[in-house]
Amino acid sequence: MTNILNMTLAQIARLIDGKVEGDASMVITGISGIKEAKKGDITFLANARYYSLLKTTKASAIIVDKKTDKNGRPVIRTDNPYIGFVKIMEYLQINKEMPLPGIHKTAVIGKNAKLGKNITIEAHVVLGVDAQIGDNAVVFPGVFIGNGARIGANTLIYANVSIRERVIIGSNVIIHNGAVIGSDGFGFTPIKGVFNKKVPQLGTVIIEDDVEIGANVTIDRATVGRTRIGRGTKIDNLVQIAHNVDIGEHCVIIAQVGISGSATLGNKVTIAGQAGLAGHIKIGDNTIITAKSAVTKDISPDMCVSGYPAIPLKEEQKIKAYRNRLPEIYKTIQELSQKIRKLEKKLG
Amino acid sequence: MTNILNMTLAQIARLIDGKVEGDASMVITGISGIKEAKKGDITFLANARYYSLLKTTKASAIIVDKKTDKNGRPVIRTDNPYIGFVKIMEYLQINKEMPLPGIHKTAVIGKNAKLGKNITIEAHVVLGVDAQIGDNAVVFPGVFIGNGARIGANTLIYANVSIRERVIIGSNVIIHNGAVIGSDGFGFTPIKGVFNKKVPQLGTVIIEDDVEIGANVTIDRATVGRTRIGRGTKIDNLVQIAHNVDIGEHCVIIAQVGISGSATLGNKVTIAGQAGLAGHIKIGDNTIITAKSAVTKDISPDMCVSGYPAIPLKEEQKIKAYRNRLPEIYKTIQELSQKIRKLEKKLG
Amino acid sequence: MTNILNMTLAQIARLIDGKVEGDASMVITGISGIKEAKKGDITFLANARYYSLLKTTKASAIIVDKKTDKNGRPVIRTDNPYIGFVKIMEYLQINKEMPLPGIHKTAVIGKNAKLGKNITIEAHVVLGVDAQIGDNAVVFPGVFIGNGARIGANTLIYANVSIRERVIIGSNVIIHNGAVIGSDGFGFTPIKGVFNKKVPQLGTVIIEDDVEIGANVTIDRATVGRTRIGRGTKIDNLVQIAHNVDIGEHCVIIAQVGISGSATLGNKVTIAGQAGLAGHIKIGDNTIITAKSAVTKDISPDMCVSGYPAIPLKEEQKIKAYRNRLPEIYKTIQELSQKIRKLEKKLG
Repeated sequence: MTNILNMTLAQIARLIDGKVEGDASMVITGISGIKEAKKGDITFLANARYYSLLKTTKASAIIVDKKTDKNGRPVIRTDNPYIGFVKIMEYLQINKEMPLPGIHKTAVIGKNAKLGKNITIEAHVVLGVDAQIGDNAVVFPGVFIGNGARIGANTLIYANVSIRERVIIGSNVIIHNGAVIGSDGFGFTPIKGVFNKKVPQLGTVIIEDDVEIGANVTIDRATVGRTRIGRGTKIDNLVQIAHNVDIGEHCVIIAQVGISGSATLGNKVTIAGQAGLAGHIKIGDNTIITAKSAVTKDISPDMCVSGYPAIPLKEEQKIKAYRNRLPEIYKTIQELSQKIRKLEKKLG
Repeated sequence: MTNILNMTLAQIARLIDGKVEGDASMVITGISGIKEAKKGDITFLANARYYSLLKTTKASAIIVDKKTDKNGRPVIRTDNPYIGFVKIMEYLQINKEMPLPGIHKTAVIGKNAKLGKNITIEAHVVLGVDAQIGDNAVVFPGVFIGNGARIGANTLIYANVSIRERVIIGSNVIIHNGAVIGSDGFGFTPIKGVFNKKVPQLGTVIIEDDVEIGANVTIDRATVGRTRIGRGTKIDNLVQIAHNVDIGEHCVIIAQVGISGSATLGNKVTIAGQAGLAGHIKIGDNTIITAKSAVTKDISPDMCVSGYPAIPLKEEQKIKAYRNRLPEIYKTIQELSQKIRKLEKKLG
Repeated sequence: MTNILNMTLAQIARLIDGKVEGDASMVITGISGIKEAKKGDITFLANARYYSLLKTTKASAIIVDKKTDKNGRPVIRTDNPYIGFVKIMEYLQINKEMPLPGIHKTAVIGKNAKLGKNITIEAHVVLGVDAQIGDNAVVFPGVFIGNGARIGANTLIYANVSIRERVIIGSNVIIHNGAVIGSDGFGFTPIKGVFNKKVPQLGTVIIEDDVEIGANVTIDRATVGRTRIGRGTKIDNLVQIAHNVDIGEHCVIIAQVGISGSATLGNKVTIAGQAGLAGHIKIGDNTIITAKSAVTKDISPDMCVSGYPAIPLKEEQKIKAYRNRLPEIYKTIQELSQKIRKLEKKLG
């Protein structure tokens, strides 16, 4: 395996705030899911449904909760086994994967760029005039950061990302490969002699702290003002966010969703994959939008909506159930017609 | 604000062909939407619906039409206030955002490349053998332009775009970050011993003048012949255009649309977001295809279609309305059944 | 035309294992589809439906099967005319389009990288520490290949592709521009004080031999373990493949499809454009999923499914047909109601 640990159970228990039952000096060399685990790995059991795997897994140790019968296996007990597992992954992540600080000689740094402490700027990066990079930020190869753009502290930008001029990105943000932040909004207007005259897009994009943006996502800059992605929001791959969209805090937007211009999302909104939102609508806090839905108008807070146009999920499910019974409904109607004809005949 | 103007009302009025009412020497420092405007900004009022905002906006001046009551506010009167606003944005765009001409020392220019006058080729651009760049074209960092590709005059190509060999791009074209033009069409054929043998894609792509192509769009090259994007067509982000597609002039294609191989679009076709078109179909001039539709066969000119499979919008809307009444329809049928049973009983 | 041949009919016949009827010394200068062909081109006739075009095509020669009446035209006869045409295209591809081997001076090669024989690494490529490149592989400009990643022999990677650390890519693989392989899976978990804590994604991606990956595709790395794309599978543009997905051999996945986390596909599965698959489901061998479908649960082998949620295609088609008759169904119900009212009246 490539994710190599080299820790005793005792060390791991300390890391994840757990307690060993079994040989605390046993050396663990890898981590894995409970099905795929092999000798030397540590795994976890978070769901009682998979209890039978605790007996059969090839893992050398299992992280379990405080009550699970360990069935004679070496375990680490902790309050939340999954969180324990995540903590090991974080430890591995921090210690193995990050490049060393420094500015590669092939990087092109614009005039008056402000560079924070301990930053990493890798090969072929282009940083525009007046751009800023916060402390400890890491910029992978081939990234373009336009004039006047600002990147916050501890932010991680993967290879071949494009960030246009004046875009503002907060701290602790992660931007995956190929994402585009600050491309022109899609704005045109008819004008004498021109079918679709381009409307310049002079606004910007603001990405707040703790946001994660997936690979090949596109976020357009505002016409004037800003497109905003609120603090803690997580955006999956290939999502489209149009100009002047305002996304609140801690939203979760799954892959291939499209959000049209000037739509406003509250906080903690969840949008499942391939859904689409019309322009200029307002989505309340805590709303859930199911996969492939098309939201065409405002949605009140705390709703779960589905379908095209999106309506409350339960209504949509009911309608879908009846839709599947359409052949039966049609048959019933024909039978009723026949019966009525018979009755009519009888009555003359 | 980042979009800094520094013009008097008189200067702005001259720029947009308008007439000041109020202090013509007032200095304007920014532009903004009417809701977000603050002191020093100029904004516009294009829709009578928002008239009340004219009284409350914090903007220092408002562009209005020839008839609107100015309510004591400083205004510039012009025929079309939105177009006036767009003209100011264009002025800002031209004067502030464009990089200076020149070829960056890290750019790699292929043999026999033909470079026009006054071009800008930024850092880490790769220009292939025999490639051509027209006068005043601007190529941002990290762009790849393949052998024999041709870029027209005044064309603007943003960072990290990939243009494959022999692709032909017209004048006044804008291509946003991460777009891919000329990738292989998706063509395979079964052949003895191979399940899916690749069919080489030897054609090309032709992008005509005045086209705009969104971020992370993909346009495949033709198998033989060419994929074509007609003059003035505007393509939003993350759109997929397959091999041998032929798109007419002045079409508008919204984000995440997919167009399958060899489909043909007439002129002034509009396709809303996340719609999909089957291969080898023909879409007539002035057609409108609504969001998320699936067009499976030819569409006559001047139609507005919707749904899956796409049918005329009014029909689809009618069917959708009935679909939502399915629970009611089902209930009615059950009531009718009961009534008939009663009648049958009565009649013996 | 840009695809210039310069071969006699006799030479072409030898290349495609065919037999000339006509002047074998005639020089052919291009290839083309039968409709677009012009003087000097060779084309093919694979479908009897287009026989009339054999008489009218401007092509100088036509590849036909063993039985077709050549109508006095110069032809090459071969078992499968389309395969013959593909062979010419392959010949052109091999002889014209590939860059020469070598490592460009602007490429950055990490420590301990293992470079095979006869490889091509073009400008501004970044190859990580411990990365491996197989014999004859071609890497276009601007590609990023992370630490420890491995690229097999004869593999072709187009410009601006991003391949993250430790990803393993087989032989004879083609990866189109802008594709991202190995970005973090979309995994978060609630934890004390944090709404969505990132779960590190420490697994990898394995791309097996003979796979083709389209432009701007995104394939996420596994949380632990690997995301897998099986041998011979072909993936079109803008497809999203989430973490821990396992795709079998010889699958065909059309543009803009999204596959959620931990879904498993058998061999020879076909997924048409813009379809979506839920997470953790299992799709059997030889399954076909129609365009825009939403697959929400396991699908047995050899099924063709459609709709949302996806059901057997024939059922979905039937339901769709009845759906379109909903206005008629509604009208019938109203008529039946009236008739019943009349009957009730009669019966008192």
